[in-house]
Amino acid sequence: MADVHICEVGPRDGLQNAQHLMPTAAKKAWISALAAAGLKEIEVGSFVPPKLIPAMADTAEIVAFAKTLKGLKVVALAPNFKGFQRALEAGAHKITFPVSASRKHSESNVRMTPEQMIEEVRRCAREPHPGVEIEGAVSTAFGCTLQGEVPEDDVVRIAVALAEFCDFVALADTVGYANPAQIRKIFKRVFSAIGSKLEAAHLHNTRGLGLANALAAYEEGVRHFDSSLGGLGGCPFAPGASGNVITEDLVFMFESMGVKTGVDLGRLLEARKLMAQAIPQEPLYGHMALAGLPKGFRAAA
Amino acid sequence: MADVHICEVGPRDGLQNAQHLMPTAAKKAWISALAAAGLKEIEVGSFVPPKLIPAMADTAEIVAFAKTLKGLKVVALAPNFKGFQRALEAGAHKITFPVSASRKHSESNVRMTPEQMIEEVRRCAREPHPGVEIEGAVSTAFGCTLQGEVPEDDVVRIAVALAEFCDFVALADTVGYANPAQIRKIFKRVFSAIGSKLEAAHLHNTRGLGLANALAAYEEGVRHFDSSLGGLGGCPFAPGASGNVITEDLVFMFESMGVKTGVDLGRLLEARKLMAQAIPQEPLYGHMALAGLPKGFRAAA
Repeated sequence: MADVHICEVGPRDGLQNAQHLMPTAAKKAWISALAAAGLKEIEVGSFVPPKLIPAMADTAEIVAFAKTLKGLKVVALAPNFKGFQRALEAGAHKITFPVSASRKHSESNVRMTPEQMIEEVRRCAREPHPGVEIEGAVSTAFGCTLQGEVPEDDVVRIAVALAEFCDFVALADTVGYANPAQIRKIFKRVFSAIGSKLEAAHLHNTRGLGLANALAAYEEGVRHFDSSLGGLGGCPFAPGASGNVITEDLVFMFESMGVKTGVDLGRLLEARKLMAQAIPQEPLYGHMALAGLPKGFRAAA
Repeated sequence: MADVHICEVGPRDGLQNAQHLMPTAAKKAWISALAAAGLKEIEVGSFVPPKLIPAMADTAEIVAFAKTLKGLKVVALAPNFKGFQRALEAGAHKITFPVSASRKHSESNVRMTPEQMIEEVRRCAREPHPGVEIEGAVSTAFGCTLQGEVPEDDVVRIAVALAEFCDFVALADTVGYANPAQIRKIFKRVFSAIGSKLEAAHLHNTRGLGLANALAAYEEGVRHFDSSLGGLGGCPFAPGASGNVITEDLVFMFESMGVKTGVDLGRLLEARKLMAQAIPQEPLYGHMALAGLPKGFRAAA
């Protein structure tokens, strides 16, 4: 059994922000390789309007395919009720809703206030969804490129509201503004407000603090982490700045600390190669893949 | 007053491992810019045989120049008695001796066993050195590319021996093998063995864990950190793998946590530009320089 649970979000958060489209067949091969590496949960796509984000147009087909992979929890993102319906129809095991704690980000991203978005998720949660998990992810929880600082009280209030009708709540550092002290403080507050309903940390590595933030979150009791292979995605406004916290570096950090992830690093690097072949122009990040494992390295046992 | 103290080691550890030579005049301009950014301690060079490491041939001249910068503590590395004498003659304020905890690394690097190297440092410390600080740095303290695992007991034993006659002891992750759990464990053990004689953490970012390790060390009570601007230096055996923990990212992490470094990030990035101009072919690392500061960012006050 793993000590921490890693959800690979590259096929969604990575590809959604990538400059280049990955063909559907390559997505399937990549997701298979990720599952073969031991990842038990993959966010495979987003049910957004295909006109807005062409990279996500094949999400229903990808969900259907991913469901054929044994033991894999298939996650899809839905930004609204319509996306939720499509995700349900496609058969996703878990549907995640981003709710911006930043008013400006929420209005610019989904044309709803945070309060309206909470009501949208509540409406979805009231629909029958047998066996399907619903996650409310508080995005821009640590700061926002539009608004700057995001008040902690807003984050706690939204988390508490979502915990009423979601199975799980996550806190997301959507733009890579978080620092370890802030991670500790906000996770502590939200844990004390909603207990174990607070599940995952969704962290970005935009300013290089991804692993330090993950460490702080782990030490606060977080055992579920989102990450993306090769830090895929980056930030279109910051060339060279990587995207999500890097899966292979995160796995390496935990395993070297003796914390079991259930992920095989060698196979994970094979999946990275597949990904790189499918979108060769896309910049990839990550130190472990370049430096290799330490001499005598042993995975956590 | 700063809460943490950062020693920039780029001019030594960075340039010593760089592929390209930086001209003496450019070194001086760069060191001036580093000092102007608020760095109060810089390891400016190494008194090694110039034939072995041509990049360090001008160290005496660089030490003399750096001493003209007001308020700057000028550090030089010495690998043996002869280097110590040259460092004393040059007028370094602080002389640091690396003592490998890895027997294989020690024998291959300085042709001495760790015990012989301890005796070499003891011999130096017995020489008159009025006003000059002596630091013993336990290198490969967290693992070694030649030996693999380095027993913790060896690290503690060497630190205890050095603490007898050195002003300060540092622990160095020379090859970037450390993980945060190990950092906590070994710093705890050495702190309990030699107390405040244990001063600095010298960390590398080879496998991406530099900042996570720095965070763990900070939380164990470490307040002195070595780092290099742009992660200069890298590893000749791991293309793309960065060198020391990256000064600007380290400063950003601490300042965003509310921990004062005394370093001005804007001026630090100016120093980075100067460095990049002087060795344009050299790969540089670091996220902060690419992504920029968060909107509304405030340094620690």
